[in-house]
Amino acid sequence: MRHVIALDVGGTGMKAALIGVDGAVLHRARRATGRERGADAVVETILGFAAELSAHGEEHFGEPAAAAGVAVPGIVDAQRGVAAYAANLGWRDVPLRDLLSSRLGGVPVALGHDVRTGGLAEGRIGAGRGTDRFLFVALGTGIAGAIGIDGVVEAGAHGFAGEIGHIVVRPGGMPCPCGQHGCLERLASASAVGEAWAGACGDPDADAADCAKAVESGDPRAAAVWQGAVDALADGLVTALTLLDPRTLIIGGGLAGAGETLFTPLRAAVEQRVTFQKLPSIVPAALGDSAGCLGAGLLARDLLGTTETDPETDPENDPSPTPTPQSPIPTPPSEVTT
Amino acid sequence: MRHVIALDVGGTGMKAALIGVDGAVLHRARRATGRERGADAVVETILGFAAELSAHGEEHFGEPAAAAGVAVPGIVDAQRGVAAYAANLGWRDVPLRDLLSSRLGGVPVALGHDVRTGGLAEGRIGAGRGTDRFLFVALGTGIAGAIGIDGVVEAGAHGFAGEIGHIVVRPGGMPCPCGQHGCLERLASASAVGEAWAGACGDPDADAADCAKAVESGDPRAAAVWQGAVDALADGLVTALTLLDPRTLIIGGGLAGAGETLFTPLRAAVEQRVTFQKLPSIVPAALGDSAGCLGAGLLARDLLGTTETDPETDPENDPSPTPTPQSPIPTPPSEVTT
Repeated sequence: MRHVIALDVGGTGMKAALIGVDGAVLHRARRATGRERGADAVVETILGFAAELSAHGEEHFGEPAAAAGVAVPGIVDAQRGVAAYAANLGWRDVPLRDLLSSRLGGVPVALGHDVRTGGLAEGRIGAGRGTDRFLFVALGTGIAGAIGIDGVVEAGAHGFAGEIGHIVVRPGGMPCPCGQHGCLERLASASAVGEAWAGACGDPDADAADCAKAVESGDPRAAAVWQGAVDALADGLVTALTLLDPRTLIIGGGLAGAGETLFTPLRAAVEQRVTFQKLPSIVPAALGDSAGCLGAGLLARDLLGTTETDPETDPENDPSPTPTPQSPIPTPPSEVTT
Repeated sequence: MRHVIALDVGGTGMKAALIGVDGAVLHRARRATGRERGADAVVETILGFAAELSAHGEEHFGEPAAAAGVAVPGIVDAQRGVAAYAANLGWRDVPLRDLLSSRLGGVPVALGHDVRTGGLAEGRIGAGRGTDRFLFVALGTGIAGAIGIDGVVEAGAHGFAGEIGHIVVRPGGMPCPCGQHGCLERLASASAVGEAWAGACGDPDADAADCAKAVESGDPRAAAVWQGAVDALADGLVTALTLLDPRTLIIGGGLAGAGETLFTPLRAAVEQRVTFQKLPSIVPAALGDSAGCLGAGLLARDLLGTTETDPETDPENDPSPTPTPQSPIPTPPSEVTT
């Protein structure tokens, strides 16, 4: 059966799948990234994992994979197939596309940025299915976005497009590790909400999910922290939709796990702000932490010139947190906090 | 000779051209829009003008135009070929594409938004020639933009993309007729600079060009007004480049007529703000007020599946003001003020 390899490389773990050209998920696998062993070892682990997946496909589905897609964090030059920079993997200018293609006997390989690749999957086969224009925003340790136009995610001239976490929503506000002040990421990421709530409630271990629970139980301090984040997020989203005019805003990442505790006030705050702009629908991400891997499969299938039919999102797919966006700046890697 | 009709409809005048499929401008013409005669009369004037241009082509170049492109102000649904709304022409849902095609004997017609169409020309054959990704920003009575990606200008889901004039750069700031507060347009348009300078110098007729002259002659009050506009503009541009990662920022409109009085401090202000973002080149628009008409020609030629070679920008082309962006909100129409 004709199929592709899909691989999503995270700071801690890698998720992989073999996906039929019709979109059916034929096989899933996971492996530790093992970044403590160094940058070169991570590359070798990826290549070995991909080769095993190829062998598995040959054994169980009668032929080796016809293409491969891989999503990686950091700064990605998709056109040259190079992982330009990934702080948490120690990478600089790793020609991953060519390395993988060569290890897989010359099959075509596509390389993508993790959040943009996850956004591609959400836009084409997830929460944005059928929409022509979407903005996917992942609220995790950081905040990153993916701009989808006619089935393609815009990478920008240098692979930096979609960095909505670093638009300034509070001029002169809190310093951001990126060097600016008042960035959205410092106000509305899961980390920022967790920090603000830890400070407000006095429990240094409290995180964004705890804040959401406290909001639900009627704690006014939590409500104040939460509304501050919602207001900042609405400001950032309205700026983005004024520029981009998307039909759908897809919100994922750890903070989106709060469900209507987030979406109800967020929709109200966006609606309150728009004037002449068209209000997009604001929906939660649907693919959970499979988005990156499914997106990598789409990149691979695009290389074959196939178009997706109904995709498989298999039952083990947990519909909560979407991938943590990686900051474009060197910050300590961490997992989604809620 | 195979050619197309290009037509740029402004609030006061229309500019037209016959353009060869190689990009050569074969013929130019102008006509008053005559909006005082009402919405339907303007449509009829356009149709009649186009028919005359077609007849001129048939007579002088041996065949009628093979396609037509037309740029109009307001809100444009390019996909359906409908001029959805234009306050200064009194238009609502005018099916201009089909009307024109029918008047021209069935030739294919493309309809575009004036600023986006002008931006297309700047990006493909003007200041951004050869660039894969650009943002064109026109600083006129209002501020509007065009997002160019791989030779196409992004219209958005509802025809609103590029409205950089209405991103909020000063939260809680000056009210904007659009209903928001602190919009970029209220701070850095030619009109806003003119108003601020008129207030500062006490001459109610002073405009943005007068302010630029006063800056050049060392007037400190003018310098303060000017720097305020430059700072706001830099804030807005940095927000846009953080989201979009363009390779080139093309600045046009009346305010860009100030040349290095604008560009030197603007480049410095943008450079000072960016941290991890890649600095795009910041260049003045090159096509002057021909951009909309030349862009309409590109839309028409795209319908024929031709690709441009070296374009003609003829000698009468004045390289100063680019088209005044139309606000998406109903404001009294006026021409570029500098």
